[in-house]
Amino acid sequence: MGEMQGLARQFHAAGQRVAFVPTMGSLHDGHMSLVRKAREAADLVVVSIFVNPAQFGPEEDYRSYPRDLPRDSRLCADAGVDVLFCPDADAMYAVDSSVYVEETQLSAGLCGACRPGHFRGVATVVAKLFNIVQPDVAVFGQKDAQQVRVIEQMTRDLNFPVRILVAPTLREPDGLAMSSRNVHLSATEREQATCLYRALILAQRLHDEGTSDVGSLRSAMRKVIESTPNAKTDYIEVVDYGTLRAVDVIRGPTLIALAVRIGRTRLIDNLVIRS
Amino acid sequence: MGEMQGLARQFHAAGQRVAFVPTMGSLHDGHMSLVRKAREAADLVVVSIFVNPAQFGPEEDYRSYPRDLPRDSRLCADAGVDVLFCPDADAMYAVDSSVYVEETQLSAGLCGACRPGHFRGVATVVAKLFNIVQPDVAVFGQKDAQQVRVIEQMTRDLNFPVRILVAPTLREPDGLAMSSRNVHLSATEREQATCLYRALILAQRLHDEGTSDVGSLRSAMRKVIESTPNAKTDYIEVVDYGTLRAVDVIRGPTLIALAVRIGRTRLIDNLVIRS
Repeated sequence: MGEMQGLARQFHAAGQRVAFVPTMGSLHDGHMSLVRKAREAADLVVVSIFVNPAQFGPEEDYRSYPRDLPRDSRLCADAGVDVLFCPDADAMYAVDSSVYVEETQLSAGLCGACRPGHFRGVATVVAKLFNIVQPDVAVFGQKDAQQVRVIEQMTRDLNFPVRILVAPTLREPDGLAMSSRNVHLSATEREQATCLYRALILAQRLHDEGTSDVGSLRSAMRKVIESTPNAKTDYIEVVDYGTLRAVDVIRGPTLIALAVRIGRTRLIDNLVIRS
Repeated sequence: MGEMQGLARQFHAAGQRVAFVPTMGSLHDGHMSLVRKAREAADLVVVSIFVNPAQFGPEEDYRSYPRDLPRDSRLCADAGVDVLFCPDADAMYAVDSSVYVEETQLSAGLCGACRPGHFRGVATVVAKLFNIVQPDVAVFGQKDAQQVRVIEQMTRDLNFPVRILVAPTLREPDGLAMSSRNVHLSATEREQATCLYRALILAQRLHDEGTSDVGSLRSAMRKVIESTPNAKTDYIEVVDYGTLRAVDVIRGPTLIALAVRIGRTRLIDNLVIRS
């Protein structure tokens, strides 16, 4: 940790711009697209791999979250990542740690409602990582749309000297959003999991055809999920993309987001309508 | 704000070390001793003056807090301060700001118990200022002992690359701790206000003479305050200097702290017993 902070200091002293991609590892093409975006934005790319216990609830999948550091290291080396930072949890959190970064508005709904404490864990670890890595730019994936908004707000409100870049969601050929958790899906579940994207493109199509009433969009999406065996809706929400507050009618930039359990695996996906 | 952040970047690029003294202005010799300590620790000294609304409760003295920017500017210029940073509240806090830094253990007692939200306001503004000024070193006064501990904890837990220095409390010849709020005291109150220091040195003397029982120390201190007309105790506490938890017997480093209202002015003072 001190070593990473020392490196960051050296980079800045040498006038080099640092782009940072924080991850929980188990890297897939989605992550690698963030790395490419980072590479374009700066002289040096730092990737962190840290499965952050503070953002998992007690009933959640911290222990079973997929981990494969040897493969992740190879992928980063092949992608020309300059520094791979893999702190361990004991080094990141003192036993008597007592300071948290809390976002109080944007975190309230969507995943925040289902996962109490999740965004406090996310904001806190990202603040820590920003202070350790001291990046000029940090890259996050649009797949975690609420996380993006929370981090953007944190960066603004706490005046971190970091520019936030957002990279589009990468998808498998059948539309499933890439996610480290997809490895948990059985072959059958893997097929069922396409229901998230099918629900989203249906909403997009209905909107493009003139439906701006959110009630109609949500019930159409709900039917897609409910007609999928083994799928259980956590939420289907249509919210203002700035405030993340629910809207009744689509007017400005709007986030359509959903979380669905396929068997024991919880998946999320979203799209933004920029009408 | 952007300008300050740009300056900070330039300083670091030029390999200059920055020491930072955050204040609420209305500067007195206590502040100037922090500036001297900052000067010794780095190449450049940045002082901020910002009466932070977020650390005052609705019933507190935000509006009447003393302000004298022309005098403060002269004092800083005379002391060779390199940058005086005086943001205004609108620039510091967006109307929809929603991110806070919260310390959950050390802030619970002492002033935190009397002033709900105070240390959240302090931790948040110091995190913001650290990100804007990007200091290598920051200097705080021991007079605000609980604030020092909260900031030390925040710096550690959020990995700010900042070294925290603590400067001893400066006192008037009769022992009253220097404070911007002392200007509110009438001549009579000014004399009565010495009861805080008298209570502290009595506790120190009793301890030096062999009393380690906290009950005896607190009741001796309480008598000093109660025998002072116009003085009303907010708290008299004896706590472990690390955890700020109350102790029954003085063993390791111990903080003796009190808050007393003299008329309408609330004063605090403390001493640390390093036995």
